[in-house]
Amino acid sequence: MTNSRTYTATVKAEGHLIDSQLLNAIFDVVIEGGGAFEVQHFDIGRTNDDFSRLTLKVSTESKPSLDRLVEALIPLGCHVAEEQDARLQASEADGTVPDDFYSTTNQRTQVRVDGAWIDVEHQRMDAAIVVSGRTAGCRKLRDVRAGDRIVCGLGGLRVTPEFRDRERADFAFMSNEVSSERRVEASVERIARMMEAAKARGQRIAFVVGPVVVHTGGAPYFTALIRAGYVDVLLAGNALAVHDAEAALFGTSLGVDLEAGTAVYGGHQHHMRAINAINRAGGIRAAVEKGVLTRGVMVECVRAGVDYILAGSIRDDGPIADTVTDIIEAQNRYTAALDGVGMVIVLSTMLHGIGVGNMLPAWVPVICVDINPAVVTKLADRGSSQTIGLVTDVGLFLHQLAGRLDAPANPAV
Amino acid sequence: MTNSRTYTATVKAEGHLIDSQLLNAIFDVVIEGGGAFEVQHFDIGRTNDDFSRLTLKVSTESKPSLDRLVEALIPLGCHVAEEQDARLQASEADGTVPDDFYSTTNQRTQVRVDGAWIDVEHQRMDAAIVVSGRTAGCRKLRDVRAGDRIVCGLGGLRVTPEFRDRERADFAFMSNEVSSERRVEASVERIARMMEAAKARGQRIAFVVGPVVVHTGGAPYFTALIRAGYVDVLLAGNALAVHDAEAALFGTSLGVDLEAGTAVYGGHQHHMRAINAINRAGGIRAAVEKGVLTRGVMVECVRAGVDYILAGSIRDDGPIADTVTDIIEAQNRYTAALDGVGMVIVLSTMLHGIGVGNMLPAWVPVICVDINPAVVTKLADRGSSQTIGLVTDVGLFLHQLAGRLDAPANPAV
Amino acid sequence: MTNSRTYTATVKAEGHLIDSQLLNAIFDVVIEGGGAFEVQHFDIGRTNDDFSRLTLKVSTESKPSLDRLVEALIPLGCHVAEEQDARLQASEADGTVPDDFYSTTNQRTQVRVDGAWIDVEHQRMDAAIVVSGRTAGCRKLRDVRAGDRIVCGLGGLRVTPEFRDRERADFAFMSNEVSSERRVEASVERIARMMEAAKARGQRIAFVVGPVVVHTGGAPYFTALIRAGYVDVLLAGNALAVHDAEAALFGTSLGVDLEAGTAVYGGHQHHMRAINAINRAGGIRAAVEKGVLTRGVMVECVRAGVDYILAGSIRDDGPIADTVTDIIEAQNRYTAALDGVGMVIVLSTMLHGIGVGNMLPAWVPVICVDINPAVVTKLADRGSSQTIGLVTDVGLFLHQLAGRLDAPANPAV
Amino acid sequence: MTNSRTYTATVKAEGHLIDSQLLNAIFDVVIEGGGAFEVQHFDIGRTNDDFSRLTLKVSTESKPSLDRLVEALIPLGCHVAEEQDARLQASEADGTVPDDFYSTTNQRTQVRVDGAWIDVEHQRMDAAIVVSGRTAGCRKLRDVRAGDRIVCGLGGLRVTPEFRDRERADFAFMSNEVSSERRVEASVERIARMMEAAKARGQRIAFVVGPVVVHTGGAPYFTALIRAGYVDVLLAGNALAVHDAEAALFGTSLGVDLEAGTAVYGGHQHHMRAINAINRAGGIRAAVEKGVLTRGVMVECVRAGVDYILAGSIRDDGPIADTVTDIIEAQNRYTAALDGVGMVIVLSTMLHGIGVGNMLPAWVPVICVDINPAVVTKLADRGSSQTIGLVTDVGLFLHQLAGRLDAPANPAV
Repeated sequence: MTNSRTYTATVKAEGHLIDSQLLNAIFDVVIEGGGAFEVQHFDIGRTNDDFSRLTLKVSTESKPSLDRLVEALIPLGCHVAEEQDARLQASEADGTVPDDFYSTTNQRTQVRVDGAWIDVEHQRMDAAIVVSGRTAGCRKLRDVRAGDRIVCGLGGLRVTPEFRDRERADFAFMSNEVSSERRVEASVERIARMMEAAKARGQRIAFVVGPVVVHTGGAPYFTALIRAGYVDVLLAGNALAVHDAEAALFGTSLGVDLEAGTAVYGGHQHHMRAINAINRAGGIRAAVEKGVLTRGVMVECVRAGVDYILAGSIRDDGPIADTVTDIIEAQNRYTAALDGVGMVIVLSTMLHGIGVGNMLPAWVPVICVDINPAVVTKLADRGSSQTIGLVTDVGLFLHQLAGRLDAPANPAV
Repeated sequence: MTNSRTYTATVKAEGHLIDSQLLNAIFDVVIEGGGAFEVQHFDIGRTNDDFSRLTLKVSTESKPSLDRLVEALIPLGCHVAEEQDARLQASEADGTVPDDFYSTTNQRTQVRVDGAWIDVEHQRMDAAIVVSGRTAGCRKLRDVRAGDRIVCGLGGLRVTPEFRDRERADFAFMSNEVSSERRVEASVERIARMMEAAKARGQRIAFVVGPVVVHTGGAPYFTALIRAGYVDVLLAGNALAVHDAEAALFGTSLGVDLEAGTAVYGGHQHHMRAINAINRAGGIRAAVEKGVLTRGVMVECVRAGVDYILAGSIRDDGPIADTVTDIIEAQNRYTAALDGVGMVIVLSTMLHGIGVGNMLPAWVPVICVDINPAVVTKLADRGSSQTIGLVTDVGLFLHQLAGRLDAPANPAV
Repeated sequence: MTNSRTYTATVKAEGHLIDSQLLNAIFDVVIEGGGAFEVQHFDIGRTNDDFSRLTLKVSTESKPSLDRLVEALIPLGCHVAEEQDARLQASEADGTVPDDFYSTTNQRTQVRVDGAWIDVEHQRMDAAIVVSGRTAGCRKLRDVRAGDRIVCGLGGLRVTPEFRDRERADFAFMSNEVSSERRVEASVERIARMMEAAKARGQRIAFVVGPVVVHTGGAPYFTALIRAGYVDVLLAGNALAVHDAEAALFGTSLGVDLEAGTAVYGGHQHHMRAINAINRAGGIRAAVEKGVLTRGVMVECVRAGVDYILAGSIRDDGPIADTVTDIIEAQNRYTAALDGVGMVIVLSTMLHGIGVGNMLPAWVPVICVDINPAVVTKLADRGSSQTIGLVTDVGLFLHQLAGRLDAPANPAV
Repeated sequence: MTNSRTYTATVKAEGHLIDSQLLNAIFDVVIEGGGAFEVQHFDIGRTNDDFSRLTLKVSTESKPSLDRLVEALIPLGCHVAEEQDARLQASEADGTVPDDFYSTTNQRTQVRVDGAWIDVEHQRMDAAIVVSGRTAGCRKLRDVRAGDRIVCGLGGLRVTPEFRDRERADFAFMSNEVSSERRVEASVERIARMMEAAKARGQRIAFVVGPVVVHTGGAPYFTALIRAGYVDVLLAGNALAVHDAEAALFGTSLGVDLEAGTAVYGGHQHHMRAINAINRAGGIRAAVEKGVLTRGVMVECVRAGVDYILAGSIRDDGPIADTVTDIIEAQNRYTAALDGVGMVIVLSTMLHGIGVGNMLPAWVPVICVDINPAVVTKLADRGSSQTIGLVTDVGLFLHQLAGRLDAPANPAV
């Protein structure tokens, strides 16, 4: 096309561009976006500790495609070379934003307002950025109010991707692909050490837990972790509490005897009786106080003051009184509980795991344990580069983990 | 234990006890429940059409274990030989029932009130039976009100399990175990014929649909089914509508170009822009009317008057305005929409599929299609004996199904 | 069809026909085979201990379909009411049998020769029965020689299916469906008890082992089982020995450091160096004697005198000198090693597991452990009704099993 | 460690180091190998077409660790800066090589002999390089003969990794991660185009096929591909031929009626009768000539002159006469058949797929189709960077593929 005009932009990036595979991704984006690039300057880090610095001219054949291209480069740490303020535009109606709003990633982000770069607070993916005076924060679309000033377009934005740090003890561990053919004991040892380090730094640890933890006999070990102080936040659904109560009241899980491992005929009604028992008592806390529930995960949470939130879902039986049945409220309470946690461990729940993954900034490590590799892959794929997947039996995993954290299981509890 | 007293009860059952494997299950329950049995009378069906009749004396060493045993036999079609009225007891508080309430299965059930056997309405599993005058109906625990008369204990109850009918064309088909190593075309042919038969009987067909239908390119074929009149009810979550809108507005699904099959860089923001576009319009119907949405699954649903309900979940982005965010309300609306449907087809959604499975009586056939055998197995295991599982690619499945129902895909729509 | 002639046969069966679900299967076969049945006599077992007795008239509209139907009833324990000798026909050429040869199941079988019922030896599935004088035995088609007298047709045959025994401790355990959502510790306890019982009865235990046992860190626990005397036969492939040697010589498995759990760069060559080291020594035994191999699974097998056989496959690297590269010879040696074993445990190998399943009579219990439910289901589906499936992490499983058998792992070995 | 001496080496690399992610991998290897690096020179490709050039000094604290590090860098395209001849050492005994032999990757490799760089022939992974005069070739360890001159150590070696080419139409397609949530129709279109291109270049196409192709009803479409000339080589096992013959002779596959999709009682014997029928005829070709086999995959292969090889395995029934029961011979024949093929398509067989993957040079694209994502992942992980995985139903995939290649299925054949 001889007469085609060329549109160009110059972007810059700096950091561990090679080891974080950003440089490669940047080039890919340009070519796959139908553009061309020319490296104007590249200063490679001479040693592993040094940053690299890139100045890149990108060109396309239309202004919209150039804009899309630059937009796609921002999450990779590029920013337009020419400094400018972010463009702010007011929301016209509650719960909506202008069409060209900047939709966030979970990476650290800055916006330039009145010539100054300010950090975006409450970083999470899939949000708009609302600027108010000298502060900027991520806000879910539904929480935007008419008149809020929304960051639009691509100028005045800087994203700093998490750099993979080769020197960190868990670097290689974290870059492991998902596989069931690994020695789990080595991974458990790493996770235990990460947990101890998080506690030593004074950080809270959140667990996101599916009912499979109860079915697979992991509850005695998980309660040991609670008692040992490793569980600060418990995010789950109604089913966890129901099956935990069933195990406490009847010794079964989905009607299967947990000791004998065999189905108890008539046991399929146990979970309904458990729901009824808790709701008659007035919910979990009341059931604990009245002595209706005397053991299990929820009892230990109540005793240890763990911040637990049970989110409702369309498949819930009951639900028990504690379940937050409105999912907007449940998301808000999950988000609040996750504020500032240093580490998240997801045990056998794709639904709640994905929900939590959407809420976290990129720098919080997430451990995902599931016997189904598809679940682990799916959680790791959702932009949560920080996810470490472990394909194993969650009951036996908890047994190992409690052992390595000197958290003895008390079968009577 | 020489001095042990023996407690006995006599139960009766009749029907296709052999071919429905009920006789075997009845004996299993007695032995595994720690009891003993003595066949007092067994009259085998002489030919395939004849019923068998059983009178069985069961004995255990304690009254409670005898009660548990008889309770476990009721879902298998046994009833206590001695006729008596069901025991009714009033609920003491809203949302609760007496401890020994009868928790329903999804099988046809009758209760005896004032000497007369009456059919239980709105049959579903995990409910209480509320008797009011000469009527009885299943009611979820949360919908029970103080003073409602609840069926308790085991007397005055008759359950009639669905009998497998060897002569039915789809008998062998329905008893297939879950396997990915089958010829899907043969199964599609059966399902198409079942759908035609359901429509010929004037029954409605409900689809329960996950967003994978969009990702796998099944939407053009699914919309063809809508236009051809095979979709009366659509039960889904927020994600289906979001990804359908993303495909309609941007041609991508989760940022992947549906034509080229490759990731579009920057495409990860498409779903947020799609949500914003719909919510700015005021929801799906308004977006269709205003011409914001011009094609896709939701557009066809609006045009064809399909009863669609989107249930919220903890992992929702947005959600779009149409999503029912309270799960109690979502369950109630799902249940209402399912009232009287003749067939249910679940496409790639474990969450909504289990939710729907909990709501259906045992005589509504459910087809479950998923590429993950674990999902199919899980749905088939949850007491939904009527579930036919098909492990295959859902996009290609819909392509085949539309072809066999003469429902041509219109790529432009 | 008014003029159609009807062909009939009368068959008899006795045993635990209800609890083994044989009665149901018999009726199914008749109806699905296009026939009709009439129960001429049915005497139900009055208690759980009593046998049931059936006399059944079956009818079809052609002689060939009647024959096929009776043929299909034989594996279910039916025999033609009229006693007759088995028909014997000579093989015409080595490795072949007459077209209508009786193809065996893995159930106990008797043939009538000269008026006497004789037991078939070396029972296995997919074989012909060769009669020689007063003895009869299963023989693979390839081992048939011209002139061998082969059992043909359906007369003179009696098959006695394994009856499920409700009183056996492991009855309910064995009838568990495949699921990853179970408490593995309960299952391990059962398996440990079954192993102790087998040893107490003086029976040998065979393990069928894939290399995943090494990758997942199970080797120290498996070698503990060898030292404790629980492994009499080891059936595996070349890969087990290769990865075991790699672990012994380099501390890696497929290039992954077993202690650290991370990939060792350059480690992908370790398995080739291990193969070369063993083959230079002259094979495994020589490598042990010369001190080339000092620890690991194969070393312990050599020391403990375990009968090990490594079967070749198309994906083998090397192979090491011990590998039996001709699969006919490998099958023959597997079969010989399995003669009379009391229990088989298959650890993470579908290929060898299916191979072994084909060789076993129905009364030898098989435990199949794999993290992939598809593998467990496939092994359980192949006519091996005796298979108990366990979906879990095989490394952690072996850790648990060694613990419950008081077989302490010696990390140094 | 103050007194520690430092050992250094200088390596060079050139090529598309960024987009092939080699630069990142090179740095990773150094750091994870316990070394340090210093970039002495890096010349980045200014545009997408330009090569990059790297000179890197690496240092460690011991000579062995330096050697291991340099060894690990060679497959990434690095070569020692100082030119030297490869060190050659004679094999001492048949089937063995010196301890420090160079174990090949599947990438293009050159060795320097007498000052000249010569290309290594028959490139494949896990082989030794034998130099004879002015030629060098990969040789499996077992094929090495005493006296062969083997390349040892790390000098005089150059490996040229395949560069990912962003401009190639299938670049993005090939870099797709494994997922079942994709639109298969888009992928089929790509594959069809790749096949047409391969044929247009005069290249042969090899299919590696499991029996699932028959079970899932793919055979009519696969035979259409044979007739249309798209299948030059068929690599499979005994089971494919057995189940193909069962389908041809009885219309069933593993006893399941392919039309009706339901189990045929007694059908479990069909595969044994099929084996007997073929072996009585004297093998597949003879069975075709004698009219015993008149349709199916193997018949079409015989008619079209497709080079087919059936490799034996431990789980084989029969096997049929054509099966190569010695796996060394089977590997050799597979390897010979693959010589020079331009494209390989693996359909539902992990066993044979891994076997073939081991034999191929890195520049032959491999398509792997399986409904089980674990199989696809495993094949893609085994160093076969050229593998494109597709998680879908193989029967429906073949239906689509035949359609897009205008190869109509003839149900009668």
